[in-house]
Amino acid sequence: MRAIWLEDCAIRVRHDVPRPEPREGEALVRVLLSGICNTDLELVRGYMPFEGIPGHEFVGVVEAGLDSLSGMRVTGEINAVCGLCEECTSGRRTHCKHRTVLGIEGRNGAFAEYLTLPVENLHPVPDGVPNEAAVFAEPIAAALAIGEEVSVRPDDRVVVVGDGKLGLLVAQALALSGCELLAVGRHAAKLAILEACGIRTGEAGAIEERSFDVAVECTGNPEGFAIALAALRPRGTLVLKSTYAGDLSIDAAPVVVDEIRIFGSRCGPFAPALRLLARGLLDTGSLVHATFPLGRGVDAFERAARPDTLKVLLDMEGAS
Amino acid sequence: MRAIWLEDCAIRVRHDVPRPEPREGEALVRVLLSGICNTDLELVRGYMPFEGIPGHEFVGVVEAGLDSLSGMRVTGEINAVCGLCEECTSGRRTHCKHRTVLGIEGRNGAFAEYLTLPVENLHPVPDGVPNEAAVFAEPIAAALAIGEEVSVRPDDRVVVVGDGKLGLLVAQALALSGCELLAVGRHAAKLAILEACGIRTGEAGAIEERSFDVAVECTGNPEGFAIALAALRPRGTLVLKSTYAGDLSIDAAPVVVDEIRIFGSRCGPFAPALRLLARGLLDTGSLVHATFPLGRGVDAFERAARPDTLKVLLDMEGAS
Repeated sequence: MRAIWLEDCAIRVRHDVPRPEPREGEALVRVLLSGICNTDLELVRGYMPFEGIPGHEFVGVVEAGLDSLSGMRVTGEINAVCGLCEECTSGRRTHCKHRTVLGIEGRNGAFAEYLTLPVENLHPVPDGVPNEAAVFAEPIAAALAIGEEVSVRPDDRVVVVGDGKLGLLVAQALALSGCELLAVGRHAAKLAILEACGIRTGEAGAIEERSFDVAVECTGNPEGFAIALAALRPRGTLVLKSTYAGDLSIDAAPVVVDEIRIFGSRCGPFAPALRLLARGLLDTGSLVHATFPLGRGVDAFERAARPDTLKVLLDMEGAS
Repeated sequence: MRAIWLEDCAIRVRHDVPRPEPREGEALVRVLLSGICNTDLELVRGYMPFEGIPGHEFVGVVEAGLDSLSGMRVTGEINAVCGLCEECTSGRRTHCKHRTVLGIEGRNGAFAEYLTLPVENLHPVPDGVPNEAAVFAEPIAAALAIGEEVSVRPDDRVVVVGDGKLGLLVAQALALSGCELLAVGRHAAKLAILEACGIRTGEAGAIEERSFDVAVECTGNPEGFAIALAALRPRGTLVLKSTYAGDLSIDAAPVVVDEIRIFGSRCGPFAPALRLLARGLLDTGSLVHATFPLGRGVDAFERAARPDTLKVLLDMEGAS
């Protein structure tokens, strides 16, 4: 089959990758559409060692594995877990000690014509949700993960720092709580997507310091962290949604003096993500800046790395 | 009256400080005994600007202010608050925007023959608690503050990093939950105090990494932070109990990937601290390394700054 192959911090399109064979409990999924995430770009930059097929945001059709799912459109959770270790049995399955992660760690991913995942990871896509929206289920789930760790109250003042792909989804998801939301970033065109949803936006200077109950850091850089921390009232909550490469230098004194709470946040729940997509409550269409056929995968990665670009999709059936 | 006076990062004993006049709602307290805290040492080093009488750990006798308290032995909460601002009315009184803090910010402290505090800040000391124990009410309250932010479960694995004054009290307080506790530090003599209480201790190398539910950082230095972080299992909780001077460089990637929760923690509740002291459930006596009369306050500070020294007390009535 055809697939994007990552090796030695470089990608290429291969035509000779064997179609994966589902193991016991796994399904074979024919990929329809997949999305390029910042983590994919970081993998190419060597953020962590991975050789194989990257990609973890997808929508596809089940071809084999469980009769009741056969032929259904699905998306899937990316952590394949053992179910037996202390993390799994303590309700922290996404932290399974023996996990493989689709397109990230120990398991080939979604930038290919076919992938395999445990049947338990798959979620049928509601009929009314087009592929171009369903492919966002994974990052929307990541946005919703905030609510699994932090109670955002309807009358909270919340600031989202960063107007990248994840920041825009986080802001949209948080706005559904009814909270008083401000999204800050450096790109007017990206913030305009939120303005169109009725969400207040601005530059970092628009933040009234020491006044927000919750700040969500979606930039992954130290400046964003400092902005988010300064925005918080005493005993405010800082959520870290972005992965950081390298060390982060922070002024820790205010964390103690103001008794700040910091929550690292990663993968989230797919079912609510698909429910929100089914109701059309999130604008994902405006985030899609380009769709490339799989055969032009290298061009797709180049486009996705441009600072002005939001989501780039790969169409597995598109003509190259 | 006599008092220790801090000015331009130097202390001296003065004999000419006017006795404070209690304002409306305040009591005049004749100080019996006070304790030197690391924060006091940091104030002398210029950690934050303060000129006047330092000291915030004390036990004393009420001489004027409220008839029902008159003549009683008391200790007192250190934050004097407005009661009206958003922090006060939102249940975060210790973060009052207009607060003064005994011996730390905008209010003369306890290294003097007399101090004033709002009547509402005072807590009568139970009869059976000697002055030498009651003077620990403030740091014990700070140790108990952990329980106000974090639910430490009886079967949690908990590690306390740091064997200074605060670390030893934190470990003793946490051990009362029944949790599986390990306290690590660099000073065998200090850790022996905990061993005598039945608490397991060791060097940092004794920590099994990625296995603790809760880690409490009581060193205030980046090495301690890194040790505490590495000790935690995924979704573990890191409590920062020490103030940090200067920037702290941390590897933030595991905070996100392992979804770690970090809680800054400062002042805590006095009533439970006094209840535990009344029951004799905490060993404070072993922490007292020296007691100096007020007139030898400069010597007391020098002694308190020695790395092998735990608590140094100032006896306001002692002969100099």
